[in-house]
Amino acid sequence: MASGLKVTAPLSISNINCGFDALGASLSLISDQIIGRRMNSPGVKINTITGEGKHLVSTDPYQNTAGVAILRFLEFLNIRTEGVELEIHKKVKCGSGLGSSAASACGAVVLANALFGHPLQNRELFPLAILGEYVASQAFHADNVAPCLFGGIMLVRDTRSLSIHRLHIPDNLLITIVLPELQIITSEARKMLKPDVHLKQMVRQSANLGSFVLALERNDYELLSASLQDHVIEPQRAHLIPGFYEIKEAAFKAGVTGCGISGSGPSLFAFSRNTSIAEEAGLAMQRVLKKHKVESRVMVARIDSEGTVLH
Amino acid sequence: MASGLKVTAPLSISNINCGFDALGASLSLISDQIIGRRMNSPGVKINTITGEGKHLVSTDPYQNTAGVAILRFLEFLNIRTEGVELEIHKKVKCGSGLGSSAASACGAVVLANALFGHPLQNRELFPLAILGEYVASQAFHADNVAPCLFGGIMLVRDTRSLSIHRLHIPDNLLITIVLPELQIITSEARKMLKPDVHLKQMVRQSANLGSFVLALERNDYELLSASLQDHVIEPQRAHLIPGFYEIKEAAFKAGVTGCGISGSGPSLFAFSRNTSIAEEAGLAMQRVLKKHKVESRVMVARIDSEGTVLH
Repeated sequence: MASGLKVTAPLSISNINCGFDALGASLSLISDQIIGRRMNSPGVKINTITGEGKHLVSTDPYQNTAGVAILRFLEFLNIRTEGVELEIHKKVKCGSGLGSSAASACGAVVLANALFGHPLQNRELFPLAILGEYVASQAFHADNVAPCLFGGIMLVRDTRSLSIHRLHIPDNLLITIVLPELQIITSEARKMLKPDVHLKQMVRQSANLGSFVLALERNDYELLSASLQDHVIEPQRAHLIPGFYEIKEAAFKAGVTGCGISGSGPSLFAFSRNTSIAEEAGLAMQRVLKKHKVESRVMVARIDSEGTVLH
Repeated sequence: MASGLKVTAPLSISNINCGFDALGASLSLISDQIIGRRMNSPGVKINTITGEGKHLVSTDPYQNTAGVAILRFLEFLNIRTEGVELEIHKKVKCGSGLGSSAASACGAVVLANALFGHPLQNRELFPLAILGEYVASQAFHADNVAPCLFGGIMLVRDTRSLSIHRLHIPDNLLITIVLPELQIITSEARKMLKPDVHLKQMVRQSANLGSFVLALERNDYELLSASLQDHVIEPQRAHLIPGFYEIKEAAFKAGVTGCGISGSGPSLFAFSRNTSIAEEAGLAMQRVLKKHKVESRVMVARIDSEGTVLH
């Protein structure tokens, strides 16, 4: 496809132990790419999908998060005679727990906006990206979309009112990502959760979210480590990852600040404050997975602060 | 009682909408007083209780939070031949939702510690005060004890590990307290709560606690106002206070930043950032209560930053 525009949209971790549906953080150097151009027929045409798990993603624009996001964009602006054609390159396959769907949705709306001369602000693109991501997760939530679009570590206070808040990124924070070769369907992982939580668990979980915010704002790694606990979701999803608690133990032995499942998994993340811990932890986690006959890939990233970027 | 020592222990609001069992804030100029001296017989003797609701508080040291707190103090230090005699002056009656029991417990341990030559740090007195307060609330929680003992707005991350964190106090913050003439028993108000919470409610509640912390740290009144919501506890306790939602409406009409039930009630609190709003809101709330045939008292305080103080 000649003379198109290109965007990169970062992948992101979400939940981050204590912030189910409320916390997300975008990852530097780990991003999807979308290339696109205007076309003289209405709607969206997805020409090719390349990269990881390309066969898992539909090229039907109505079944594709990038496609739906742009369709919503075109509807919103009442653009009826023109459309967008796309080429999508996936860095990781969907269902990795790294906000792959959100990346497609964010990339798509930023691209479309650029192709039509920037009629909307990023703030206005945000709900359109959320509508796009709905196709994949069957839920309206912004914990991946917010960091992917805007960058940084984001607290989603309220999706409906688009109340999202960028948190301070602690100095030297590194994120180790371990991506096991396992398939988890986001919407299934969501359905498996008990609809209710014990009041006491709610108190512990929400107090940890409060102190997580405080730890970031104050650059307090000790408090950050204490806050990175999940009393509600992790116990219900741990069995999806063979050797999960052993993996965590290996990460903590390597010296990480915190460790958990990203999104609904199977990706795992660990926070640490120096490169050698981040790398060592990744290898240690990978070794445990291998012992359990699961292959995996390790990546080390920083928090990306730019979000979805047009090139 | 001659030649005794005197402490003042501030009353405190707790829960603060989004922080059930996790948030508390101590109030300036609203405090209990305890006077005491060492005696040559073991244990605790409560000579007199004066002030509001004095008949509601037992002078049996084993049934009194101040008494139990000092008994625990004496046990902890293995003091067997001497004891403490007390005179307690209550500013508000117990069961007001203003941490009256915590004030007695904190005042008692600080007093005892002074009487015996300061063998313990305040940090070490903290668990003893929590044990004392247990008598009143039948639960080990620190959301009133922490601000009462140390002052300020406190986030209790974890009671068992005594993980408490002092939050930034926003500039010019005023707290209106409206104390209706109603009796609510803390332990009963606790029992009435459903043991479970919907997962979605947990997400909203914890995200609000996260953004509450962020709002304080950043002095952001707009975010503070948005965060001061209670999706879990308030709906279950609102019926205990006649005209509750009308009272809230009156407070918001007067311009407050937030408004809710303090602790398990019946006290109500409102946050605002100037004296005229704080006073006007108090009167407006009082008027609604009066319409519902409930008399009340209004106080306006700032956040106290000293905690329990020896004179």
